[in-house]
Amino acid sequence: MEVYNNPLKNDWDRLCKRPVSSWDEIEKKVLPVLIGVKQEGDKALKRFTEQWDGVVLDELIVSDAEIEKAADAIEPELKNALHTAAANIRKFHLIQKDPERILETMPGVLCWQKSIPIQRVGLYIPGGTAPLFSSVLMLAIPANIAGCELIQLCTPPRSDGTVHPAILYAASIAGVNKIIKVGGAQAIAAFTFGTSTVDKVDKIFGPGNQYVMAAKQLSLKYGTAIDLPAGPSEVLVMIDESADPVLVAADLLAQAEHGTDSQVVLVSTHSNYIKPVITELKKQLEELPRKKFAEKSIENSLALSFDSLSDMINFVNHYAPEHLIVSMADADYIAEKIIHAGSIFIGHLTPESVGDYASGTNHTLPTNGYARNYSGVNLDAYLKKITYQKLTSKGLQTLGPEVVLLAEAEQLKGHANAVQMRLDKLKEES
Amino acid sequence: MEVYNNPLKNDWDRLCKRPVSSWDEIEKKVLPVLIGVKQEGDKALKRFTEQWDGVVLDELIVSDAEIEKAADAIEPELKNALHTAAANIRKFHLIQKDPERILETMPGVLCWQKSIPIQRVGLYIPGGTAPLFSSVLMLAIPANIAGCELIQLCTPPRSDGTVHPAILYAASIAGVNKIIKVGGAQAIAAFTFGTSTVDKVDKIFGPGNQYVMAAKQLSLKYGTAIDLPAGPSEVLVMIDESADPVLVAADLLAQAEHGTDSQVVLVSTHSNYIKPVITELKKQLEELPRKKFAEKSIENSLALSFDSLSDMINFVNHYAPEHLIVSMADADYIAEKIIHAGSIFIGHLTPESVGDYASGTNHTLPTNGYARNYSGVNLDAYLKKITYQKLTSKGLQTLGPEVVLLAEAEQLKGHANAVQMRLDKLKEES
Repeated sequence: MEVYNNPLKNDWDRLCKRPVSSWDEIEKKVLPVLIGVKQEGDKALKRFTEQWDGVVLDELIVSDAEIEKAADAIEPELKNALHTAAANIRKFHLIQKDPERILETMPGVLCWQKSIPIQRVGLYIPGGTAPLFSSVLMLAIPANIAGCELIQLCTPPRSDGTVHPAILYAASIAGVNKIIKVGGAQAIAAFTFGTSTVDKVDKIFGPGNQYVMAAKQLSLKYGTAIDLPAGPSEVLVMIDESADPVLVAADLLAQAEHGTDSQVVLVSTHSNYIKPVITELKKQLEELPRKKFAEKSIENSLALSFDSLSDMINFVNHYAPEHLIVSMADADYIAEKIIHAGSIFIGHLTPESVGDYASGTNHTLPTNGYARNYSGVNLDAYLKKITYQKLTSKGLQTLGPEVVLLAEAEQLKGHANAVQMRLDKLKEES
Repeated sequence: MEVYNNPLKNDWDRLCKRPVSSWDEIEKKVLPVLIGVKQEGDKALKRFTEQWDGVVLDELIVSDAEIEKAADAIEPELKNALHTAAANIRKFHLIQKDPERILETMPGVLCWQKSIPIQRVGLYIPGGTAPLFSSVLMLAIPANIAGCELIQLCTPPRSDGTVHPAILYAASIAGVNKIIKVGGAQAIAAFTFGTSTVDKVDKIFGPGNQYVMAAKQLSLKYGTAIDLPAGPSEVLVMIDESADPVLVAADLLAQAEHGTDSQVVLVSTHSNYIKPVITELKKQLEELPRKKFAEKSIENSLALSFDSLSDMINFVNHYAPEHLIVSMADADYIAEKIIHAGSIFIGHLTPESVGDYASGTNHTLPTNGYARNYSGVNLDAYLKKITYQKLTSKGLQTLGPEVVLLAEAEQLKGHANAVQMRLDKLKEES
C-alpha cells in the first residue's frame, strides 16, 4: 500500500490513474472472433467453445430439464436468500418507472415522452471460479420490469458442459427467457450478429474480462448498444476517527479479493488512522481464501490522508470511484458533497457487500472514472424514449408562423413550406 | 422514387438499409487529427482551421463584444421566434426532472437514486450553408436545465472569421458559457483532450458530417461519452385516404432538402394514394431553393403500400425511423402501435418542422435504425445517476445474514466477512 499525506494537486491525476489495457492489441485478437461468428454462426461458437473452454457441445442451448434440475440442486437457505435479494432489487427498480405526462407547451401544442422497452437484450455472465448469480439478478430483473421481449443470457459452460445450478436458478426467478452455453468474445459476437441458436440483440449487458469488454466495444460498430464501458472493480473508503479499522480493512479486502487488478483506495481525515487499518489488513489477509488475488491488489493500493476536508472531498470526486464507502461520523453530509461515484454506502453499518447482493441497488456500475459521465445500470438502461407531438388547428395557427420564420432564417424553405401550406389550407377552410 | 406494393418480408431488411459509410477509412483520416490536437493543442486547432476552413485566426474564443454585437444584428421577429422556441423547449425538458424518492426495501435498508448533472459538456454545431441555431437551442437548453457546470460550444468560423449572429444569440439565450471558433474533427479532438482554449469535456453532443461522427466515435476510446451514434436524417410518412397529397409532398421535401443522403420513405395503406403524392413532389420540387439536394434524395427514396395494416405497422417498426409523421385518420391509434421511432408527429396538422424548431421536443434523434436501442437527446442525456444505500443496525441484522450466505455461495469470503464482522460487533455491543 502506498501511503501519502496531503498529496499535491499536481499528483492527483497520477494517483487517480487506473491500469490501462492496450485496446488496440486486444481488439486485434477479438475481431477475428467476431468475424468468425458472423460468417459461420453456431459452428464457430462450438469451435471457440472447444478451443477456449475445452468443452465439446452438441447443443448450445440450456434445456428446460436442466433448469428444472437446477432448482432441486440448490439448498433451501440459498434459495431464500436469492429470493430476498430478488425482491429488494425488484422493489428498487420498480420505483424508477417514469410517469407519462402530456404537456401543452402552448395552447394546442401537445408534447409528451414515453418509455418503451428495448425489445431484445443480451446478458453476459462470466464463468470462472465462482458462479456469479448475483449479476444474473442485477441484469435480468430490471429487464423484466422494463418489459423487454427477449431476455437472453450467455454464460460459458463448465468443464463438464453444464452451467452452475445457482446461475440457472437465478435466471429462472429473474425472468430470463433463454440461456445459451457460450462465453467470451464469441458470446458477444453471437449477440451482435445472431446465429441459429442465439438471437441478435439490441443491447448487450454484463461484466467480463478484457476480451469480452473489447468485443462489446467493437459490437457498437455493428449497431448494438452496450451498458457501460468497464474496467476492473474499485472501492474507495473514506474514514475519520469514528471508523473501526477492523471493518475498514474488511471492506478493502472485500474489493481486493475480486482480482489482482482490483482498485482499492483508502482516504482518511488524518494520517494516524491509516496505520491501524494496514495492521488489520495484514491480519485478515492471512485468513482469506482468495489471498493470492487480494494480496497483489492491496500491494498496488493507495492510502491518502488530507488535513483539509474539502481537499479530501475534491480528491474523491477527482477519483470518481465505482463504489464509495463513507465510514465517517458525518457520513450523510459527506455523501451529499460527492458528485462523481457509482454507488455510495453511507455510514459504518453499510458495507459494499450489501449493495453487491441484496440491498436493492444495482451492482453494475461505472469504473475507471466513468462515474463522471455514466450512470450505473438502472431501469432506464432497458428503456428508450419516444417523443410525441400533436397540434390542433389552434396550436398550428399560434406556433406555425414562428416556425416559418425560423425555418426561413435557417434557409430551409421546404421546412417552412410544410407549415405554411397547412396554415394556408386552414385559412381556406375557414 | 422506388415504388413497391406489399413488399415481401424477405425484402424488408434490404428496403430498410441506409447508406453505410466505411468507418474504417474515415477513422484512418480522422485519427491523425485527434493525435495532432492531443499533442499540439491550440496550435493544431489553428492549423486545421486554416487548412480546412481557409481562415487564419489569432483568437479562437468568441469575445463578449462579439456576442453583444450579435444581439443587435438580429431582426426583432427572429428574436421573438427564438424566444418562443426556447420557452417551449425549456418547458418540455423541465418536466423530465425525476423526483428523488427514498425507498425502504426492507426495514432499516434505505436505498435511493439521485440525478447529478454531467459537469462539462461540449456542444458541436456544424457550419455550412445555413446557421443551425435551432440545434444550439436543442443542445444547450437541457444542459442548462440539468445544471451542467460548463456548457461549451464549438462551431467553425465563416470565411471572414466570424460566427453567424443567430448562432451567438441562440447560445446566449440558451445558457452557453463559452463559444470557440473551431469545427470538424479538430473540434471533437479539442473536447476530448482539452487545449489552452478549449476545456476537456465529459460528454460531447451534436450533429456533424461523417468526419465529425467518426471523431466522436473515436473519442469514446479516450474516456468521453457521446450523445448518439448518427447518420443522415430521415423521415417516414404514413398515409391513408385522409392524407392531403400536397401536405405529404411538402413533408417529404422538408426532409429531402437537408442533403442528398437524406432518407425519405412514404408508406401508404393503398397504392392509389402514392401517385398523387409523386405528382405533387415533382411540382413542389421545382420551386425549392435547395432543389439540387432534394431532387437527389427523392430519387433514392421509397414509396410502399400495404394491404394489411398490421404489415404496414410492422414495416415501420422494422425501419425504426428517426422522424415518423402519421398522416392518417386514426393517427392516435397508429402512434400507439409504434415501438421504434425517434419522434412521432401525430395527425395532419403536425408537420415535422414544428418539432425541428419549436414545439418543445428535442430534434436530436436516433437515425439509421438506432431508434431500436437509443433515445433521442433529452434531459437525462445531461445527467448521471448515483445510487445510495444506508443501513440501520436493524437493517443490517435483517439483511446481513442473507448477504453472508450469498457471498459465501459465490466463494467471496471477503465479502461475507465485511458483513459478518459488523454483525458480530453489533452482538458484542448489545
